[in-house]
Amino acid sequence: MEDKNTSRHKTLHLPAWVAPFVEAWPNPLTTPQERMRLAIALSAENLAQGTGGPFASLVSDPVAGQLIAVGVNVVVPQHASLAHGEMMAIVLAQDSLGTHDLASVKALELVTTSQPCLQCYGAVIWSGLRKVVVGARGSDVEEIAGFDEGPMPSDWVGEWAKRGITAEVDVLRSEACAVLHAYKASGSLVYNSTGSLAQD
Amino acid sequence: MEDKNTSRHKTLHLPAWVAPFVEAWPNPLTTPQERMRLAIALSAENLAQGTGGPFASLVSDPVAGQLIAVGVNVVVPQHASLAHGEMMAIVLAQDSLGTHDLASVKALELVTTSQPCLQCYGAVIWSGLRKVVVGARGSDVEEIAGFDEGPMPSDWVGEWAKRGITAEVDVLRSEACAVLHAYKASGSLVYNSTGSLAQD
Repeated sequence: MEDKNTSRHKTLHLPAWVAPFVEAWPNPLTTPQERMRLAIALSAENLAQGTGGPFASLVSDPVAGQLIAVGVNVVVPQHASLAHGEMMAIVLAQDSLGTHDLASVKALELVTTSQPCLQCYGAVIWSGLRKVVVGARGSDVEEIAGFDEGPMPSDWVGEWAKRGITAEVDVLRSEACAVLHAYKASGSLVYNSTGSLAQD
Repeated sequence: MEDKNTSRHKTLHLPAWVAPFVEAWPNPLTTPQERMRLAIALSAENLAQGTGGPFASLVSDPVAGQLIAVGVNVVVPQHASLAHGEMMAIVLAQDSLGTHDLASVKALELVTTSQPCLQCYGAVIWSGLRKVVVGARGSDVEEIAGFDEGPMPSDWVGEWAKRGITAEVDVLRSEACAVLHAYKASGSLVYNSTGSLAQD
């Protein structure tokens, strides 16, 4: 029964272009809008480079204006359905800070180009993040790009609020949607739950 | 603004005891109950070894009786709130098979000692898994061990079914609950969304 090929570890990584791209980005990033502009640029570049889906996120300390980590979607090239932009930013932020609970360090913010899908919505709850800044709406993701957001709670903002997480929505929404339109126009793969089942 | 310490990759790994433990486990694993018995043993051993929370999962091909990957919760020691047992099994199975979409290979099953939390519930939807076998209920996880499952859809089985995913519940439920009771009795950390915020 045991399979010698069973994987025992998995490394998820940012594409090589990301670090120099972030380093070259103009300071400061003192407002949610400035941080969202970087996230949207990352999502557009991820599409242009062909390194994943049209989604990016970053974790920052909004008081100090400090960037903790960035993430882009790397699902298809890195063979990992969990590797949405939000998950990459969260796991790299936690790695940088040496804790599974960001709230144990300080009140940090996630900036994300699109409303998180159900997986990432849940992941935010366990991450210790205290605020999420959202660009495109879930309905934009579904209607423009054709992705399924999953069975989200109808009052998703309120369910986060009960757990101490604030949401700020529609931040640079039209700029975020422009990347979704570009993705749709590119004819790229939309990986959904209804993916084809091999006929074997 | 740019931080030289920003992490650019993250490796998640199974604890060292897992591979020999699985190799020593008796064959066959032809029924969901036999597979659940291994998953429960992994969750108990994870608690005994102090390598993470009392949760484990495995991905298998139920027709061939083939184990594709196993996962245990490594959230606290590996500083990754996403690293629930289900996420580890899914990401390692996808790595083994070289695809983000398990359904593109064949109809695979997740066996998990407890009902997935909201993050993992969503992750299952994007994984391409076609069946989930569940031990302890979500209410058991919350009432026995004190974890929060998150704002799950009220008809979570039905929402999966709409997306082609079948659930089989209460498989060796009492054995799975016994590990949750042991965890509670151990006084181990329960990491929840209401984790303390540093007073800074």
